[in-house]
Amino acid sequence: MALLDTLERPTLLLNAEIARDNIRFMTEKARQQGVRFRPHFKTHQSAAVGEWFRDASVSAITVSSVDMAVYFANNGWTDITIAFPLNIRQLRTVNALAQRVRLGVLVESTEAVKVLQTSLDATVDVWIKIDSGAGRTGLPWSHPPAIHELARSIQQNKNTRLRGLLTHAGQTYTASARDEVAERYQTSVNRMTTLQADLWASGLGLLEVSVGDTPGCTVSSSLGKVDEIRPGNFVFYDSQMLRLGVCTPQQIAVVLACPVVAHHPERGELVVYGGAVHLSKDIVVEQGLTHYGYVVPLNSDGTWSTPLPDARVARLSQEHGIIVMSAEQMKQFEVGRWIGILPAHSCLTVAAMRSYCTLDGKPILTGSSAEPA
Amino acid sequence: MALLDTLERPTLLLNAEIARDNIRFMTEKARQQGVRFRPHFKTHQSAAVGEWFRDASVSAITVSSVDMAVYFANNGWTDITIAFPLNIRQLRTVNALAQRVRLGVLVESTEAVKVLQTSLDATVDVWIKIDSGAGRTGLPWSHPPAIHELARSIQQNKNTRLRGLLTHAGQTYTASARDEVAERYQTSVNRMTTLQADLWASGLGLLEVSVGDTPGCTVSSSLGKVDEIRPGNFVFYDSQMLRLGVCTPQQIAVVLACPVVAHHPERGELVVYGGAVHLSKDIVVEQGLTHYGYVVPLNSDGTWSTPLPDARVARLSQEHGIIVMSAEQMKQFEVGRWIGILPAHSCLTVAAMRSYCTLDGKPILTGSSAEPA
Repeated sequence: MALLDTLERPTLLLNAEIARDNIRFMTEKARQQGVRFRPHFKTHQSAAVGEWFRDASVSAITVSSVDMAVYFANNGWTDITIAFPLNIRQLRTVNALAQRVRLGVLVESTEAVKVLQTSLDATVDVWIKIDSGAGRTGLPWSHPPAIHELARSIQQNKNTRLRGLLTHAGQTYTASARDEVAERYQTSVNRMTTLQADLWASGLGLLEVSVGDTPGCTVSSSLGKVDEIRPGNFVFYDSQMLRLGVCTPQQIAVVLACPVVAHHPERGELVVYGGAVHLSKDIVVEQGLTHYGYVVPLNSDGTWSTPLPDARVARLSQEHGIIVMSAEQMKQFEVGRWIGILPAHSCLTVAAMRSYCTLDGKPILTGSSAEPA
Repeated sequence: MALLDTLERPTLLLNAEIARDNIRFMTEKARQQGVRFRPHFKTHQSAAVGEWFRDASVSAITVSSVDMAVYFANNGWTDITIAFPLNIRQLRTVNALAQRVRLGVLVESTEAVKVLQTSLDATVDVWIKIDSGAGRTGLPWSHPPAIHELARSIQQNKNTRLRGLLTHAGQTYTASARDEVAERYQTSVNRMTTLQADLWASGLGLLEVSVGDTPGCTVSSSLGKVDEIRPGNFVFYDSQMLRLGVCTPQQIAVVLACPVVAHHPERGELVVYGGAVHLSKDIVVEQGLTHYGYVVPLNSDGTWSTPLPDARVARLSQEHGIIVMSAEQMKQFEVGRWIGILPAHSCLTVAAMRSYCTLDGKPILTGSSAEPA
């Protein structure tokens, strides 16, 4: 039976071949440039997809929560950075993890460092979170004295091993095009390496530099003089990356298959079962307007075509997706048939769906598929 | 030990007393006006919270998916309307359900009716979905001929019992204030009762009218000449309803407790562990600007105060929430302490979190806490 005939409800289809190609592309790029590849696993959140990275000789990973670190440690990963400002409420778990794996944590305040130093029975790698322009978290790159002070406080205790400077150049996500992505990435890298030189000159040691966002790592021909990159989204890409010119439609590895439930030709809209609880409500900003993703025809084996030129997911409610589409075009998509939505932001769609279906019909679970903690 | 001291990660706190008060308020309002109360369970999605409705003598419910209907049928509910355009991919399950409970389904096309009629072994109540102004799903109220045709097709088979006309006046959610909510609700009700009279005059029988959105059912002193109301959100309310003047801060029954992880007094921002995967990315539109919810101080027993006047969740990434707040104010919220976010849209936050913690520390699971289907 064809894959689509076996489905009943909104299903996140994963094209494993595309994802493996994306993994090979980024692994190879990092290898050629002599940069450690520590992919962010917050995008796929799945031990099974993690194995595809292992097949490409990846051994160090990034996660975005303590719980995700525990999940991947339980699945055989032994070198894990939690790229999120240390949540001191979970220190007991952090301490237990530090005794099992090589653990990296992020700090940006001396308070967090002090609490860490009084709680650890094992050594952790400590990364200073730097804000290199995104304005989300981290100490501003432009004020070295605060960074020096934090570096010294980390070095005061043998269990907090000062490893390096880490940033997430989130500003590449809001660039208007590919060129601007590369430029913002390069600016971020330059700020980080300048800071590294400054700390070295101040006798604080030669710290590593860790960067990495999918747009910058994908489009920049040179990754720059950094020690490691941590992109995550590239494993699947999505409609945001497509809009930005970072990926092609053929590189997007996940699609939400949705049953068509209603036609409204009079207003040029088609309604699918597939809403905010499936896709998340993240948006694509395109020429000043926002939408929730591009739309693709699905083949019966679960593969999909390139996006329909004028179709967009215009609105989402809890379970409904409203797709704008011409009355002529919607004739191809009868009630009960399937249509595909390329998620605006694949990381959030994966988090919402909690499982995938590969094109050979196998379910793949994520770490949050189990009972909530 | 105080409740907050037992928590480690973002947790959805549920004040059961407030939720029960909200349930009593709406139950009583419907009872006094002689209208059937069929609350929408897509907001809380939990068998345990469902029991609080049973305590208030509720026996008929609304859900938004076939899977949710199965979950509540398994938890003893025997009169269930699936208020979503029939997904004909799940007809096997619909048929099985129809043999266990009094099941209501929504249709808006003769195609769906035909498929239903050839698949059923038991009788279902069929509601014609009417678009009374929201522009999402349903046949337009202003074109009776299509509604007549659909009504006739439903009446052609004994297993599809034409029950009534059903609408969701989603336009009340985008009103600018309380008065406008009441006005839009009343307009929607008038359109439905006019249509009901038209069908009666055309010999199609006296159909029931089902309406119900939380804003309209909360603020309208008269529910109008309808047979049933189906609000859902009122059980918890949220920041969207607060902005609209539909509820008071004291009526909001859920808050996301988040650990503070970083301070940025220089830019007036505080960072919490609590992001899009916890809150969803739904927004509150306030004076032309958007944000992700109001912010409240939490007491150690898990209760919370009224919103901080100038604090808002300004940005969300996957795990981070960025709260705008004055440097002075953030001194009360040290790194490691808790702060509360009143969800923009409680239904989507519940769907994202999949479990609650009551103020006496008990976990409450939702139907989607189990392994994904």
